[in-house]
Amino acid sequence: MKQSLAEFIGTFWLVLGGCGSAVLAAAFPDVGIGLLGVSFAFGLTVLTMAFAIGHISGCHLNPAVSIGLCVAGRFPASKLLPYIAAQVLGGIAGAGVLYLIASGKADFSLANGFASNGFGIHSPGGYSLLACLVTEVVMTMMFLLIILGSTDSRAPQGLAPIAIGLGLTLIHLISIPVTNTSVNPARSLGVAVFAGDWAIGQVWLFWVAPIIGAVLGAVIYKIIGSTEE
Amino acid sequence: MKQSLAEFIGTFWLVLGGCGSAVLAAAFPDVGIGLLGVSFAFGLTVLTMAFAIGHISGCHLNPAVSIGLCVAGRFPASKLLPYIAAQVLGGIAGAGVLYLIASGKADFSLANGFASNGFGIHSPGGYSLLACLVTEVVMTMMFLLIILGSTDSRAPQGLAPIAIGLGLTLIHLISIPVTNTSVNPARSLGVAVFAGDWAIGQVWLFWVAPIIGAVLGAVIYKIIGSTEE
Amino acid sequence: MKQSLAEFIGTFWLVLGGCGSAVLAAAFPDVGIGLLGVSFAFGLTVLTMAFAIGHISGCHLNPAVSIGLCVAGRFPASKLLPYIAAQVLGGIAGAGVLYLIASGKADFSLANGFASNGFGIHSPGGYSLLACLVTEVVMTMMFLLIILGSTDSRAPQGLAPIAIGLGLTLIHLISIPVTNTSVNPARSLGVAVFAGDWAIGQVWLFWVAPIIGAVLGAVIYKIIGSTEE
Amino acid sequence: MKQSLAEFIGTFWLVLGGCGSAVLAAAFPDVGIGLLGVSFAFGLTVLTMAFAIGHISGCHLNPAVSIGLCVAGRFPASKLLPYIAAQVLGGIAGAGVLYLIASGKADFSLANGFASNGFGIHSPGGYSLLACLVTEVVMTMMFLLIILGSTDSRAPQGLAPIAIGLGLTLIHLISIPVTNTSVNPARSLGVAVFAGDWAIGQVWLFWVAPIIGAVLGAVIYKIIGSTEE
Repeated sequence: MKQSLAEFIGTFWLVLGGCGSAVLAAAFPDVGIGLLGVSFAFGLTVLTMAFAIGHISGCHLNPAVSIGLCVAGRFPASKLLPYIAAQVLGGIAGAGVLYLIASGKADFSLANGFASNGFGIHSPGGYSLLACLVTEVVMTMMFLLIILGSTDSRAPQGLAPIAIGLGLTLIHLISIPVTNTSVNPARSLGVAVFAGDWAIGQVWLFWVAPIIGAVLGAVIYKIIGSTEE
Repeated sequence: MKQSLAEFIGTFWLVLGGCGSAVLAAAFPDVGIGLLGVSFAFGLTVLTMAFAIGHISGCHLNPAVSIGLCVAGRFPASKLLPYIAAQVLGGIAGAGVLYLIASGKADFSLANGFASNGFGIHSPGGYSLLACLVTEVVMTMMFLLIILGSTDSRAPQGLAPIAIGLGLTLIHLISIPVTNTSVNPARSLGVAVFAGDWAIGQVWLFWVAPIIGAVLGAVIYKIIGSTEE
Repeated sequence: MKQSLAEFIGTFWLVLGGCGSAVLAAAFPDVGIGLLGVSFAFGLTVLTMAFAIGHISGCHLNPAVSIGLCVAGRFPASKLLPYIAAQVLGGIAGAGVLYLIASGKADFSLANGFASNGFGIHSPGGYSLLACLVTEVVMTMMFLLIILGSTDSRAPQGLAPIAIGLGLTLIHLISIPVTNTSVNPARSLGVAVFAGDWAIGQVWLFWVAPIIGAVLGAVIYKIIGSTEE
Repeated sequence: MKQSLAEFIGTFWLVLGGCGSAVLAAAFPDVGIGLLGVSFAFGLTVLTMAFAIGHISGCHLNPAVSIGLCVAGRFPASKLLPYIAAQVLGGIAGAGVLYLIASGKADFSLANGFASNGFGIHSPGGYSLLACLVTEVVMTMMFLLIILGSTDSRAPQGLAPIAIGLGLTLIHLISIPVTNTSVNPARSLGVAVFAGDWAIGQVWLFWVAPIIGAVLGAVIYKIIGSTEE
């Protein structure tokens, strides 16, 4: 129960902080934080939560991560459903508080997408479905490799929150123009619930691709990270 | 006495560095640091001081943090008044030195707000009082969760200054457009004393909301961070 | 074999992430990440991989680094060829996936250089061959000094990934305008294979100069880092 | 001798990297790194060198730091002269290599100041001598507090390079518009030797003010950092 609550709060923070920086601050006139600032914001939500609640729930904050850790043998399948439920609810709650704040500005409009993920004509840079699929699969695969490797018992101890958080920053630096960057089904669904319209219609890709990528990452790390000869 | 002096110097640095970067460098022509640079500056004042004086005073630098730590049972109530007094005086001193520097430029004017916090027509992006209240409460709540979690005995040791400092950076990345970001009554009062006018008139929100948020964060961490079954 | 696979994946990530951020996100309209974001992206590929696979292969991701470590007596010459082969193939694979993604945008063109390194009229800022040669030699020399020093047994343990990753960020902050920054023959060759044309014609410099610089850095560290009187 | 050589190389890197990012990359068209990138560059020169050569020479790279550490009782007066000599020579060498690179561009001109420090009409933002004096004294004072505090035996071990490096980043985020930020006499003299003209005429301030600030910081830390009752 404490673990589920921690996952709820952590995913709440990931969506409020990451998507919030995008909606509220990215394009602020003249001094906006841009995609670089949004990339740091997403990464720092994970970095801060990994230090704050890592010892409580492991700080997954992401259904694809929970599934990948399960495939890698690091997380029991019996906890998958409560974790994913908490992450999805936390993501929706984060998007809800963001909606409450953002709509406190006179010219607020959901028509800007509310930081939703999209492909094709809803990709920020107009990238094709194939390019978006490849991007989300590969980015989530690398995210899992970073998570599994930096939490390996042979890696420097205690520093995985930095590697994982800044890894998510890096993933955003590369891929916001392509899909607005998901690698996290709970983040995508959270804002899509409020954005509605095309965002809900395209959210399937941001469940399918990150989960495929996470499984791939887990399988690859089982090979290269094995200590058997 | 050494602890109060350390809190005075640390809060002096938070206001001089954070608000200083905003007043002096954010909108510098062509190459200004923008809100991203200001966000890093605020966070780095706390990161650097947490490493430099954490072992002396605990490095709160913020009345809301001291109150939240007290509610969480991590700080004795008997020290609240001297800590808050030192923080308030340090914040005013930091704003004073900033005023001395900033007024050394021919076209300096306090009419730009001197990095004060505000709501409604004095919110940088024109956000309503309700949006500003929610923002400050939630941001400070999450700040306390980060502080309490990363300094938990089960968290990686010695790295809390990084988590807390970059957590404050993240909070600024999200919320500067809403309230200019306070989460710290001493920071708000420090510059308002010099800015006067509406800044003093609105400073009450930036005492009330951060303290409510800090208490909420402390209560939530007592639940999820408890080691009892 | 696991080591070669780790080097392949790591160099794949360095080119996909570093060059990917440059091709996809650097000049995105209005909110692009600029050279600052590209610098962080390159550095974070190394930071994340050093935490993720450092315990598997040492995480060189760079033929010049492998050669420099060999000269410094930290890496056996017998492994040079398989490491360099894996790095070169990984770099080409990373550039290949980037090509697949980037070409999913209607107006994509290789004519923009595909993040290739160049000198003279193909230097981003139009710097002469001599300036480009000096830059690549000195930057790689300092990179090796950072690597050898931060992994010295007398340096703080476990933090070398931060020093080395952010060291690569720093090198990019300085030198992207000069050569688009290589300091890594595998990164240069990887994108040149796809860019073709002048990029292939100039790639020799980005093998010669980084290797000279790496050897220089190894020799200097053997002098200043020696524990003999 | 190894210590002097390490200080020479480290200060060479500080000037080449910090001033180099300013001269080469800050104002690059459309995607330049701006003052935020320059701030990170300066800080990362110190962060990387502190990990790389901290165990050799202590990594001062700055005459004001060496003097402040001496006043604080952490560095023997007998080593002051060789350290300062190595730092000054290293700074000039770094500026020399930067000149060699920067002049490899057709339209290079020293008339832009070559990243020199200045006050009054040579302050980037036109700040008065008094404002510049106060800025350099206070910034160096806080820099010494960060250095002395983060290397205190009671502070988290091994992380001082992060605190000190990012502390220098913070100092630049605040004060580049005022003095172009010195806090380091060797950095100021290094580029002034090449810039000549007003830069040499004003360099006295960037020896006097940082040294005053460093002594103040040392004295304050002796008070607040004392373990006596």
